[in-house]
Amino acid sequence: MARDTLNSSVTSIGVIMNGVTGRMGTNQHLLRSIMAIRQQGGLRVSATHTVMPDPILVGRNEAKLEALAHRAGVDRWTTSLAKALDDPFNTIYFDAQLTQLRSSAVLQAIEAGKHIYCEKPTGVNTAEAYELYTRAKARGVCQGVVQDKLFLPGLLKLKWLIDSGFFGRILSIRGEFGYWVFTGHDQISAQRPSWNYRKDDGGGIIVDMLCHWRYVLDNLFGSVRSVVCMGATHVPERVDENGTPYRCTADDSAYAIFQLDGGMVAQFNSSWTVRVRRDDLLTLQVDGTNGSAVAGLRDCVMQPYAATPRPVWNPDQDSPIDFAKNWMTVPTNQIFDNGFKTQWELFLQHISTGSPFPYDLREGAKGVQLAELGLQSWSERRWVDVPELER
Amino acid sequence: MARDTLNSSVTSIGVIMNGVTGRMGTNQHLLRSIMAIRQQGGLRVSATHTVMPDPILVGRNEAKLEALAHRAGVDRWTTSLAKALDDPFNTIYFDAQLTQLRSSAVLQAIEAGKHIYCEKPTGVNTAEAYELYTRAKARGVCQGVVQDKLFLPGLLKLKWLIDSGFFGRILSIRGEFGYWVFTGHDQISAQRPSWNYRKDDGGGIIVDMLCHWRYVLDNLFGSVRSVVCMGATHVPERVDENGTPYRCTADDSAYAIFQLDGGMVAQFNSSWTVRVRRDDLLTLQVDGTNGSAVAGLRDCVMQPYAATPRPVWNPDQDSPIDFAKNWMTVPTNQIFDNGFKTQWELFLQHISTGSPFPYDLREGAKGVQLAELGLQSWSERRWVDVPELER
Amino acid sequence: MARDTLNSSVTSIGVIMNGVTGRMGTNQHLLRSIMAIRQQGGLRVSATHTVMPDPILVGRNEAKLEALAHRAGVDRWTTSLAKALDDPFNTIYFDAQLTQLRSSAVLQAIEAGKHIYCEKPTGVNTAEAYELYTRAKARGVCQGVVQDKLFLPGLLKLKWLIDSGFFGRILSIRGEFGYWVFTGHDQISAQRPSWNYRKDDGGGIIVDMLCHWRYVLDNLFGSVRSVVCMGATHVPERVDENGTPYRCTADDSAYAIFQLDGGMVAQFNSSWTVRVRRDDLLTLQVDGTNGSAVAGLRDCVMQPYAATPRPVWNPDQDSPIDFAKNWMTVPTNQIFDNGFKTQWELFLQHISTGSPFPYDLREGAKGVQLAELGLQSWSERRWVDVPELER
Amino acid sequence: MARDTLNSSVTSIGVIMNGVTGRMGTNQHLLRSIMAIRQQGGLRVSATHTVMPDPILVGRNEAKLEALAHRAGVDRWTTSLAKALDDPFNTIYFDAQLTQLRSSAVLQAIEAGKHIYCEKPTGVNTAEAYELYTRAKARGVCQGVVQDKLFLPGLLKLKWLIDSGFFGRILSIRGEFGYWVFTGHDQISAQRPSWNYRKDDGGGIIVDMLCHWRYVLDNLFGSVRSVVCMGATHVPERVDENGTPYRCTADDSAYAIFQLDGGMVAQFNSSWTVRVRRDDLLTLQVDGTNGSAVAGLRDCVMQPYAATPRPVWNPDQDSPIDFAKNWMTVPTNQIFDNGFKTQWELFLQHISTGSPFPYDLREGAKGVQLAELGLQSWSERRWVDVPELER
Repeated sequence: MARDTLNSSVTSIGVIMNGVTGRMGTNQHLLRSIMAIRQQGGLRVSATHTVMPDPILVGRNEAKLEALAHRAGVDRWTTSLAKALDDPFNTIYFDAQLTQLRSSAVLQAIEAGKHIYCEKPTGVNTAEAYELYTRAKARGVCQGVVQDKLFLPGLLKLKWLIDSGFFGRILSIRGEFGYWVFTGHDQISAQRPSWNYRKDDGGGIIVDMLCHWRYVLDNLFGSVRSVVCMGATHVPERVDENGTPYRCTADDSAYAIFQLDGGMVAQFNSSWTVRVRRDDLLTLQVDGTNGSAVAGLRDCVMQPYAATPRPVWNPDQDSPIDFAKNWMTVPTNQIFDNGFKTQWELFLQHISTGSPFPYDLREGAKGVQLAELGLQSWSERRWVDVPELER
Repeated sequence: MARDTLNSSVTSIGVIMNGVTGRMGTNQHLLRSIMAIRQQGGLRVSATHTVMPDPILVGRNEAKLEALAHRAGVDRWTTSLAKALDDPFNTIYFDAQLTQLRSSAVLQAIEAGKHIYCEKPTGVNTAEAYELYTRAKARGVCQGVVQDKLFLPGLLKLKWLIDSGFFGRILSIRGEFGYWVFTGHDQISAQRPSWNYRKDDGGGIIVDMLCHWRYVLDNLFGSVRSVVCMGATHVPERVDENGTPYRCTADDSAYAIFQLDGGMVAQFNSSWTVRVRRDDLLTLQVDGTNGSAVAGLRDCVMQPYAATPRPVWNPDQDSPIDFAKNWMTVPTNQIFDNGFKTQWELFLQHISTGSPFPYDLREGAKGVQLAELGLQSWSERRWVDVPELER
Repeated sequence: MARDTLNSSVTSIGVIMNGVTGRMGTNQHLLRSIMAIRQQGGLRVSATHTVMPDPILVGRNEAKLEALAHRAGVDRWTTSLAKALDDPFNTIYFDAQLTQLRSSAVLQAIEAGKHIYCEKPTGVNTAEAYELYTRAKARGVCQGVVQDKLFLPGLLKLKWLIDSGFFGRILSIRGEFGYWVFTGHDQISAQRPSWNYRKDDGGGIIVDMLCHWRYVLDNLFGSVRSVVCMGATHVPERVDENGTPYRCTADDSAYAIFQLDGGMVAQFNSSWTVRVRRDDLLTLQVDGTNGSAVAGLRDCVMQPYAATPRPVWNPDQDSPIDFAKNWMTVPTNQIFDNGFKTQWELFLQHISTGSPFPYDLREGAKGVQLAELGLQSWSERRWVDVPELER
Repeated sequence: MARDTLNSSVTSIGVIMNGVTGRMGTNQHLLRSIMAIRQQGGLRVSATHTVMPDPILVGRNEAKLEALAHRAGVDRWTTSLAKALDDPFNTIYFDAQLTQLRSSAVLQAIEAGKHIYCEKPTGVNTAEAYELYTRAKARGVCQGVVQDKLFLPGLLKLKWLIDSGFFGRILSIRGEFGYWVFTGHDQISAQRPSWNYRKDDGGGIIVDMLCHWRYVLDNLFGSVRSVVCMGATHVPERVDENGTPYRCTADDSAYAIFQLDGGMVAQFNSSWTVRVRRDDLLTLQVDGTNGSAVAGLRDCVMQPYAATPRPVWNPDQDSPIDFAKNWMTVPTNQIFDNGFKTQWELFLQHISTGSPFPYDLREGAKGVQLAELGLQSWSERRWVDVPELER
């Protein structure tokens, strides 16, 4: 349905999109967020004002850029980041490059006075990531970091339960993430890029996932105060994009326990070497004094106190309780748009109207910090406290 | 069907049962094991030889003993352990007392040359538990410790999968144990004795469960080499047997990670403050290169490599894969007797014929050791290695 | 999604398609293979090279050819095979004529130095079919034979099970092929051409299907070493294309047992006079020491050793085991293209890059050989060994 | 409900039961047939006459006999066959011994003028089995052989379909018998006696099952005229009753094709090394011009001509036809008693009233004959005709 923009002025906003030829950048950010916002007639940020993002693609491979521009229906693209930054029409800089390349490009964009929005992890270490925060703050530009898991419909339903007081006092959280990632040794091709499994290329599930768990825990439950984490490389060999076997040097599984503010404990398994006997690829079980819930990507089930069964341990007969049955599904009371697009809209709203956008570069740095401390915990075989990053 | 005992001689064996007036002692050991073996005509230990256990109940409360003897149809009982030990007809000593009382009684029985069979934990600390082993070994008596979880039908099926090579190389184990133990604050009475929640009375889920996890892990997968463990008292107040609220001083939840021989990692949650969104009160998920399985108390489901789905992360539509469906139940191809009785029969066979009985007092001490090291890990906030107890 | 062909040179390859006005030739080879490859922008055989097949239709009936060319969007067609062979642009000769006509045409094409790709059976007898192999080999042209059943999604899944070692040692194979082919005597028209049921016209299910079973068995399990086969003409009269009843002189059912290398036994029923009480029109059940599977056209179900039930023969009560339940569907972890097209692409890749293509004219001759020996076994009422055709 | 026997005279009939300490003899013949007939008040053979079988157990092991007699509530037992035969009260001789022992005992009983009823196979070879027929005929005693499969409720329903003309002309029969017999190598104990898998002890599935297929085919469809059969020992090692591995020397699988009178073809697989992906442990599919049916142990499904689907071979999409659905279950319009008991009642009726009993010792010899010819076919690798045994 066409939006009614009769009485509304439209402002075009140039958005530099750097490094979106990869799968996530192309699909989630370019096609399903920016182009989707364009197709819906822009984002109406007030009764009288609509903003229309106008992307310019930046990358290193001209042929790939041209092909993507053609495919997406974008007419602006360049291999020169400097040129894109020089153009005052472009007021937003978005970065989805490899993590190793992010910092210098973002700093350039900050210098050029652009608003910054970027993918996670926001740096290869906490110091680098935190510098982006302080520099952007000093320069006075708006800042944002992608925190897509918060916008999963299942987690939005969980948030609703939390906000409604359903749980009473929350006691503990169980996170299970992962699935069996085929190694590529047989007719079923490998599922993920080979660099994910090589340490030197920035791979490893701790680096990949603990960034996510930080903002999920901090935003939904309470600040992470301590972490113990251990990684493992359970599958030592996989087959790369060219069909060549290679040695896996990065962790494919992470076992972590977090202590949160208020005495809550969060236990998280992340693994590319498990099979899924649960509701979804990611599940969060939350147990509280008044009830429990388990959220997946799209659904969330709940068991209130009064529906809690009182089981008896008796291995001599089949359980009279069907433990899966006494849970009820949280209804889908609202339509959930693509989470990446939702966050883009919040950011566009933020830079246009000054509305709050809590996911700034300090939040991004906090994610990098938790991953870094997780690796430290693994190496030192002990619990590690999480120091606060100054605001 | 009656057992054919025509050509078989029958030997009566006096069994001292100390501390079986509690729920577990009465039901599992006296009624459903010893008396059940009597009712089936004894245990045929060879083609020509049957042994018939003949219990004598020992305890501190004469009234309770008499009532139990009457109820069970036992004609021998006494409050004097010394007297029972003096009688040469009694060749087995079984102990199901409170842990604090176990060591001295068992040592007396060893001194008296009785074969020892006892409940776990076998001591209040590793030193005490290990002493039972060395003393029994020196005295040359047979020894056994209850390790009932190994005889859960679900875990026997899991063992079958392991032995048949189903998993390929086993990578990791997830254990989830527990359920919501009602606090007794409302119309639903408390489910467990209040001492379970008081530190000074020997309570705490770490002490209770890590003994079990030790023998489960060591016997099914590989020796436990290191542990990190954290406890929590999520529910601070409960109501005791007299309806009086009391402060909980012991841990009601334990978060632990174990490193096993061969690089396997076992992650175990044990909790009396969770609700059950899984197959059973205890579930063990095992992931291997060639397949995975999840065992509960009685059932076990499996997913072979070739049935492993290749999911795509897409929160924008409901998953086309029903993750619960591609698991198949391991069929119940044999009849499983009560696990406690099975272990009693193995022990009776052992003392009669010298057949192997691997669950000796050293195994019992290993269970105590893991619980002790779990508590140490919690207190020191670090990984703790598990030293080998000499054979 | 458009293929990225930016840096790729494109070579057109003339493909002579002889005898594709029939149902299979038109649908599977012309429209769904060659034209589909054209529509997808050709076949990329390397990073820098794409081949584009350019068909020329050859046939005896000018009107039919013209109509088909028009329908398919092909601009080259001729009734003169000689002319098509003379044109050096045409480098591939494909033959889908009636079997009786195949040999002489293929030999002409070999003489003309064309690469050969053809339908099965590749000759009316083994000698004729084998000569195609030796002549093509001597002339040095590439060669290929359609073996479409190997590319059925269900059989590809079965192949995956085999390659992954799922079965342990394979013991036996059961093949059931067929369905009720209506005779045309009532309102339901006949389903297959009448020549299929006339011996003199090359009909008969042994000739038709044993070619398939040869390459299925040889490629998936092990070489066929001996055969016993019996045919039957269960339905003696059918109604032809003109509504006229005719006498059936060819076998409509074949009962065969094959001995394979390694002691495996394959039992195959092929019939146009059965009704289908099984998973699909063709099913292959494979039983191995570690598991069994049943493959159909698109799906495959499996039962691992540990899911094997232990039934008891008891006709006095309904079986407590639901024999259909303990089978699990092999997931569809990859997208399967049309099998004919896949084989065309493999062949085009083969002639362009020298990549392996195992299905040569010797393989075609082996199919003819098994059918011939099946007929011999029927006539001589005995087992017949399968001599090796020299490479 | 009690039988009304008010106006009925009751005659006791002494039944010598030789060799019923085995599983089948005890359960099916003694307990569930003879004792069940006693418990129902005997068999009313006419309006005024009831016969009451009165068993005397004969065997070689006194202890076993005594135990069985005690268990079954039988007061007559002896280790002397001669004595039992001497007693004129005993008019029926029933034999369920090992096959090797049968002939001489039955001949003794014939000599003594007893009516003969016996288990199959009735001899170790055709000559021996056929001699029982001629001798019993010459002596003028009644004769009967157990043919229990005919009395399976599923096969009785199939018989009803045949008799009602449901099939039109029957074209072909498919028999599948078998299941996975565990070898005893792991925690699941072996399922069948070890002698079944040793040639020298009379084992082998051809010897065991072809006796059955003979009477099933002859009685339901038409006389067997020729056979081709091949055996295989797919599993070379099993574990015996004492837990000792042994080499299997007898066939565990049989692949057979039979030609019947009237041009029908019956294809039968019998195997202890398959897994069951079908309706039941034994299934018979019958295809006729007017319909098809599949019978199991207790149920039978049917598909009439007019419900026959007209499928299209198209591997590119899931079949629009669910091949399992278009079959309907034959209703259970009568109560089926235990088949062994039914046959005993028919035999008692036969000796009491002269009512027909078609399953005589010649029928038994025909079963032995088919097994013998099946072995010959295997050894000579050819079809073997089945000569008629003179009446």
